[in-house]
Amino acid sequence: MSDTQSKYTITFLPANRSIRVHAGSSLIKAARKAGLHINASCGGAGVCGKCRVLLESGEVRGGRSEKLSAEDYARGYRQACIAEIHEEITVRIPEESGRQKGGLSTDIPPRHHARMHIFDMEDLKKEGIFYPPVEKVCLELSRPDVHDNRADVGRLIQGLADQMDRHRLVTGLTVLRKIRRALRENDFLVTVTIELPVNAMSKSHLLNIQPGRWTHRNFGLAFDIGTTTVYGVLIDLNSGNILAKDSCYNPQMSYGEDVISRIIHAEKPRGLAMMHELVTDAMNEIITKMLKTAPPPPNSSHGPITRDEINSITIAGNTTMTHLLLELEPDNIRRSPYVPVSTFFPPMRAEDLGLTLPHHCVALLYPAISSYVGGDIVAGVMGSGMYRTELLTLFIDVGTNAEIVIGNKEWLACAACSAGPAFEGGGITHGMRAVEGAISDFSINPETLEPMNVTVGEKPALGICGSGLLILVATLFEHGVLNQSGKFNAIDNPRIREGRNGREYVLAWKDECAADHDIAINEVDINNFIRAKGAIFAGITTLLELVGLQVSDLEQIILAGGFGSFIDLDSAMTVGLLPEVDPDKVLYVGNGSLMGAWMSELSNHIRKDVVEVVRKMTSFELSEVPSFKDQYVASIFLPHTDLSLFPKVEQRRTLR
Amino acid sequence: MSDTQSKYTITFLPANRSIRVHAGSSLIKAARKAGLHINASCGGAGVCGKCRVLLESGEVRGGRSEKLSAEDYARGYRQACIAEIHEEITVRIPEESGRQKGGLSTDIPPRHHARMHIFDMEDLKKEGIFYPPVEKVCLELSRPDVHDNRADVGRLIQGLADQMDRHRLVTGLTVLRKIRRALRENDFLVTVTIELPVNAMSKSHLLNIQPGRWTHRNFGLAFDIGTTTVYGVLIDLNSGNILAKDSCYNPQMSYGEDVISRIIHAEKPRGLAMMHELVTDAMNEIITKMLKTAPPPPNSSHGPITRDEINSITIAGNTTMTHLLLELEPDNIRRSPYVPVSTFFPPMRAEDLGLTLPHHCVALLYPAISSYVGGDIVAGVMGSGMYRTELLTLFIDVGTNAEIVIGNKEWLACAACSAGPAFEGGGITHGMRAVEGAISDFSINPETLEPMNVTVGEKPALGICGSGLLILVATLFEHGVLNQSGKFNAIDNPRIREGRNGREYVLAWKDECAADHDIAINEVDINNFIRAKGAIFAGITTLLELVGLQVSDLEQIILAGGFGSFIDLDSAMTVGLLPEVDPDKVLYVGNGSLMGAWMSELSNHIRKDVVEVVRKMTSFELSEVPSFKDQYVASIFLPHTDLSLFPKVEQRRTLR
Repeated sequence: MSDTQSKYTITFLPANRSIRVHAGSSLIKAARKAGLHINASCGGAGVCGKCRVLLESGEVRGGRSEKLSAEDYARGYRQACIAEIHEEITVRIPEESGRQKGGLSTDIPPRHHARMHIFDMEDLKKEGIFYPPVEKVCLELSRPDVHDNRADVGRLIQGLADQMDRHRLVTGLTVLRKIRRALRENDFLVTVTIELPVNAMSKSHLLNIQPGRWTHRNFGLAFDIGTTTVYGVLIDLNSGNILAKDSCYNPQMSYGEDVISRIIHAEKPRGLAMMHELVTDAMNEIITKMLKTAPPPPNSSHGPITRDEINSITIAGNTTMTHLLLELEPDNIRRSPYVPVSTFFPPMRAEDLGLTLPHHCVALLYPAISSYVGGDIVAGVMGSGMYRTELLTLFIDVGTNAEIVIGNKEWLACAACSAGPAFEGGGITHGMRAVEGAISDFSINPETLEPMNVTVGEKPALGICGSGLLILVATLFEHGVLNQSGKFNAIDNPRIREGRNGREYVLAWKDECAADHDIAINEVDINNFIRAKGAIFAGITTLLELVGLQVSDLEQIILAGGFGSFIDLDSAMTVGLLPEVDPDKVLYVGNGSLMGAWMSELSNHIRKDVVEVVRKMTSFELSEVPSFKDQYVASIFLPHTDLSLFPKVEQRRTLR
Repeated sequence: MSDTQSKYTITFLPANRSIRVHAGSSLIKAARKAGLHINASCGGAGVCGKCRVLLESGEVRGGRSEKLSAEDYARGYRQACIAEIHEEITVRIPEESGRQKGGLSTDIPPRHHARMHIFDMEDLKKEGIFYPPVEKVCLELSRPDVHDNRADVGRLIQGLADQMDRHRLVTGLTVLRKIRRALRENDFLVTVTIELPVNAMSKSHLLNIQPGRWTHRNFGLAFDIGTTTVYGVLIDLNSGNILAKDSCYNPQMSYGEDVISRIIHAEKPRGLAMMHELVTDAMNEIITKMLKTAPPPPNSSHGPITRDEINSITIAGNTTMTHLLLELEPDNIRRSPYVPVSTFFPPMRAEDLGLTLPHHCVALLYPAISSYVGGDIVAGVMGSGMYRTELLTLFIDVGTNAEIVIGNKEWLACAACSAGPAFEGGGITHGMRAVEGAISDFSINPETLEPMNVTVGEKPALGICGSGLLILVATLFEHGVLNQSGKFNAIDNPRIREGRNGREYVLAWKDECAADHDIAINEVDINNFIRAKGAIFAGITTLLELVGLQVSDLEQIILAGGFGSFIDLDSAMTVGLLPEVDPDKVLYVGNGSLMGAWMSELSNHIRKDVVEVVRKMTSFELSEVPSFKDQYVASIFLPHTDLSLFPKVEQRRTLR
């Protein structure tokens, strides 16, 4: 057992709180985990020198910086942000480093992240839902003779009809041309690949024929084409298991981070073809990598999986991504009245999409609802199980555009609202993506307003990412630093100053962090954040209103998309981004779009359900709903003008 | 009115028989038409000098040869074979030139050709059968606005659903990519091309979309791919009318005249691809020529028909031709147990066949029954109407392989028998195809056995074609020159002599004809002919036996194929090629294969019927039927060992 897998108990004094952490954890992360504040603004460089703690027993690795005198080090003081834990220790947080209010130590509120929704393949099988759209069947056919000289194709079809109930078959010229040799190469023992229809009334497609027995090798792909990232999984269609996963940045990113800039580029000469090629190149590369990393299928003496054995692919993406993949002109998506070319897509050949997959490989594109509620959301509704719950559910995918779905197995209503890029760190003076050095967690010393900045990778702070911003605004508001309008209260504190964009709170001084400036948040940033969360909340309340319900009727919230996993639920409810519900009723679905694509790749029942779900999903254009503007105006406060919607917020504010 | 359209009355003496003929006819053709024999062996060169006749009133053009002295010419003698009629005349056939038996003049029996089966488009329409598989529909769609921002495709589908009952539509990526522009180019007025399903349960295919109104331009093609000739027609799918016809030799001919030699060539490296390309090149050329010659559609200001406006093509051909067109390896067709790759063919794209037709053009290949009862025969059964008659019908397509179908609207049985090339002039010492100079009709002077040879184009005789051979053998047999075994009776006549292949009858001496040898028919030739006709007749009787019927039960005979139109029915029954029935009950269907293809191009009802017909058609391998050999042995006589099957033959023989 390597040291990094060991766990040690750390006891913090004076709180006398113990916690077990992995070897190698930093002391500051351990304190954060224990719910204890330690002043720390540099984010993990030992530069600010504020996070000094006193070792009372045991020793740490590191923890020594310029800010610490030799004398203090000898007395047992260490910089918590650069001290690694490799044994059991007891540590005292001195009063000047800790968090106190009125002389009493107060905890950092625990972070409530949404419970991860686990998609269970075994459940799918138990419920009889596992029913892959492509099946391989081995047939031992009789040899022709003078008493039975049926055509090769007739013999094959009859063989299939004898073995399984597949009378109504169609096929194409390519397969027709292979049948004669395939039958004779292994003495009339053949394996056929059959695409089963979603609708029992429809015909099966004979996709391929191979001489010999190959039923144990039947593979499929599921892809999520995100605006930022393209994800793929390689699936064993016999077991449903994922054999390989891979992802890469969507190379269209170099033409802009959001869908609008992609559309604008696609409008240029050759632009659409270029956008199409970029995404298919990325998909092809992912396929190649997955084929390399996938283990050979079990019980197989035939070596690694080859490209030719991929029989099916399901792809989900937002409406713009889908248009670009299919080379459909997306320009009307960005112009009122926002008309996509299509929201459903006929079954097609993967090779027609430019994918380096065999001729017979079939492709299914997830249907969309509208220009801004795309196939990724429909796939998320499928992947999250929302479409078959009885609970009144709010499904929400937060990004530049937030897509909202409300409903349950009976009905579904959906809308998109433009939130702006605040949650992705955009439009915020010192905002950034959630990469190393981004402040992603935060707490405050209620007396001194000294911050505890926790960064991604415990690297010196560079800026603030979306999840950090959410906690920051919530914390500042909870501690009375910000008022309901998102303005700073008149507090005299060295960390609060007048800046170019109104007042601002400094999280880290220039000389403490990796940025070449102080890292601060100002009132314009906060206003941008509030407008973003306000748009989303107004979307939720408007959509609820449209279906005659209110926030208190919600029984479940499902978060989707990359941001969803990082959202601190209390903070989200404190600022009024999410309606106030029991955090236990919030699920995080991860990449719901990929999960939905995977499910459709596993089951024709799911494919049938998708059609039903799309039929059920009523789409609303919020900008066309008169009350949306009122809802929005009411929502651009912390948390809302109607505080009765957020009873716990008031409770928390008075407590701290 | 030009002279060639005028008609004149010719009176022949001593028979005192008058007949009206077109200006420009030869005297000998006029005599033939009047049923009067004139000795003539050269076939129309004035060389043999035997056809001298005496003008009693009026004058002819030409009629003078070296064989005629100036004195005789002055007396009014003319050579009938080179005398053209351009006015009313009276002509005496001298005793030495005519046909007499026992001093009495006897007539040439009239030739009974099969009545032409006329396919009536109007009947099809009256019966509600006219229902082309591809329809064009013009839609005026509403423009999108903020209250209706459905996707372009959704708008289109709804528009179709509103206007006609077409909810269940599928389409492909190519059309999807065209819809956005098509809708907007003419302010949401579009014309869609829809392939209607044969089965009402199936989906319609959206094949194409055009901005504006184009419903009046909807065209289709029908093709017959014959082993010898490729025929095409261009059809207005709105009216059903044929707009252009064209044909050419099947260029595969340079690799052999029969299907077997084509298959052998296809087995060579690149051979199959070459055979495929040869036939598609021919089809493409025919399409190009038809587009050039077709008149612009009525009420059309849009100019000539373009290739892009061809939406559908139906193709019929025998099993080998179909395999070569589809690039299906045909090798097992020629080897026992004669297994084709396929007898039915999925709907496909014309472009996938290598045809220079638009991407959206759909292709239907006529299904076959077996390796030797092909789509051409199925198409013939459709085109001839056999599949919906109540009469017990024998359908027969005579060629190297004769295909036989027996049945009616209730049931159908079919078989192929290998007749050999005798009917196409092959395997006969002086046989030839029915081109200029081929002896195609024949009569005999019963006393002198002097021939009257009538050639194609009235050109000097070169050889004997299939129809001439049939009449020749029948005539020699009827006049006791041949016995029932096809051997020459012991007759002492300058025209009958011992040759290398048994005895032979000389039709034309070398110096009288265009060949560099005497044109004769010998006992080996006659034996080949008898074996060919015997194989066919044995096929008919065996097939009848298999379904529990006999020749006397037949109520109708339908002849198909090129040879069918030239068959003299009396001769065919005399030699025992066809069962003896009332000649009025024999129909000739012409190119039944092309007709069937045309009908399928006109009607989904017919397409549905084809599927039914194929299901009904029971195929028999005659070589596997034990009694076939006995039937064959009984059939290789003139007309048959069982003379009770041919009561009229005996009657005729004793009369003459």
